[in-house]
Amino acid sequence: MRVVESPKDMQRVCEELRSAGETIGLVPTMGAFHEGHLSLMRAARDSCSQVVVSLFVNPTQFGAGEDLEKYPRTFQQDSALAEQIGVDFMFAPSDKAMYPEGYATYVNVERLTEVMCGAARPIHFRGVTTIVANLFNIIRPHRAFFGQKDAQQTVVIRRMVEDLNMGVEIVELPIVREPDGLAMSSRNKYLTSEERKEAVVLHKSLEEARRLIESGERDADRIVEAIERTIGTARHAEIDYIAAVDSSTLEPLVKLEGETLIALAVRIGSARLIDNIKLRV
Amino acid sequence: MRVVESPKDMQRVCEELRSAGETIGLVPTMGAFHEGHLSLMRAARDSCSQVVVSLFVNPTQFGAGEDLEKYPRTFQQDSALAEQIGVDFMFAPSDKAMYPEGYATYVNVERLTEVMCGAARPIHFRGVTTIVANLFNIIRPHRAFFGQKDAQQTVVIRRMVEDLNMGVEIVELPIVREPDGLAMSSRNKYLTSEERKEAVVLHKSLEEARRLIESGERDADRIVEAIERTIGTARHAEIDYIAAVDSSTLEPLVKLEGETLIALAVRIGSARLIDNIKLRV
Repeated sequence: MRVVESPKDMQRVCEELRSAGETIGLVPTMGAFHEGHLSLMRAARDSCSQVVVSLFVNPTQFGAGEDLEKYPRTFQQDSALAEQIGVDFMFAPSDKAMYPEGYATYVNVERLTEVMCGAARPIHFRGVTTIVANLFNIIRPHRAFFGQKDAQQTVVIRRMVEDLNMGVEIVELPIVREPDGLAMSSRNKYLTSEERKEAVVLHKSLEEARRLIESGERDADRIVEAIERTIGTARHAEIDYIAAVDSSTLEPLVKLEGETLIALAVRIGSARLIDNIKLRV
Repeated sequence: MRVVESPKDMQRVCEELRSAGETIGLVPTMGAFHEGHLSLMRAARDSCSQVVVSLFVNPTQFGAGEDLEKYPRTFQQDSALAEQIGVDFMFAPSDKAMYPEGYATYVNVERLTEVMCGAARPIHFRGVTTIVANLFNIIRPHRAFFGQKDAQQTVVIRRMVEDLNMGVEIVELPIVREPDGLAMSSRNKYLTSEERKEAVVLHKSLEEARRLIESGERDADRIVEAIERTIGTARHAEIDYIAAVDSSTLEPLVKLEGETLIALAVRIGSARLIDNIKLRV
């Protein structure tokens, strides 16, 4: 595996690979790899002849007072894991290389970024789409791999790719979970052991919602209330939002129908955790 | 010359050309070709093996109450002129193809777009960078050609290309003028014959500024005042702005020094006209 720090070098290498007929898969990450990241890399490895993993803790997607400084950075371990999977290139630029002096350009997807996580994190998705657009321009991947845990992110990125004719196939892979059901996340490291035990309510409440729907419930309010009750049993949990929406438009549903996303964000201690399920109703 | 309407078709053709080692030059236009446009096409023809001219009157760069509806549309004449020059492809998509239902993505360059023309036209440059980013993604040109008349536009696009690693070389070509000095513009058609005669004050005032600078004047205020006086002699002229700025940062200059852009926008009748000169002081 080759580690590349310079955007220009990475761009040149990828242009050569693409011209030579290689199929480039990109897994954009902020590092601190867990099984979720590794599942994306394996999928890229399986379907692309060249796999690039980007590792960049992107400052523009963190709001003031968020966890940019304390976000876990474990580069040595990350690169060993990526190498084991057979990743070809790790693109790990510096902040200064991605946001040089005088940097001024942002890509923004309207509407879809103003709800759910975007309501609590107003500049978050603008940072995500800006860095992903930039990575796509540097790497020009044929395919890019994202985890379903960030379901809204995938919707936003798909919209950007379609709107701006980026010509990248977006692949979303299922959430990878801990044995007790907690969705894997680099931010789980922020939990105390007591909070860690409580954090299982996110998954538990979503599975209860699934059972309700499977037994015929279609009223979105009643499903959200059931989720609230379950999360309410955790002493340190504070709900940011619970949403039942169309999984591609993110439009709120009153009566569940069609491709449905039930998503939530909950603060537990100092961590803001997200989880979701998708169902065809 | 082949006329292509579908973004996907254009993208496929250009990807094939690029893979085959061709050098692609793009001239983005809104049509209503005059000698300014043609000079860009000839430059593209001279330095690229494949020349694409895009013709799209981009609605997102027109503000409310601006001239989107009355902007001249002369497709037959435009395509004949492009063909004469030896353009290979005319990319002429519909509004709906570029901004389909649900479109939500915008590229914005901050700061540089908030001054000069951006102060009077707050969404203009966001529309320009969005459509140019989109054209660059579809066509993936090696080089793109712009006219110096829209000097601020070139600065903004260069910033975008650098920030987002678009890998496109931006070429700016000199302003082409009518025999009396008026900068060629599709919007000159809006002038009555009396206004047309007065419009020469834009160029005349800039040439006076050039003479003042060449004879040693360095005070930006005094140069702006001299331009104001000249433009004030035209009965229908109403100044939007006169700026003396650094030609790459657009920072206002107090004392002229280095690469200097003197730019202005003036309303004459129903037309808003722009012009500029660049000097190394």
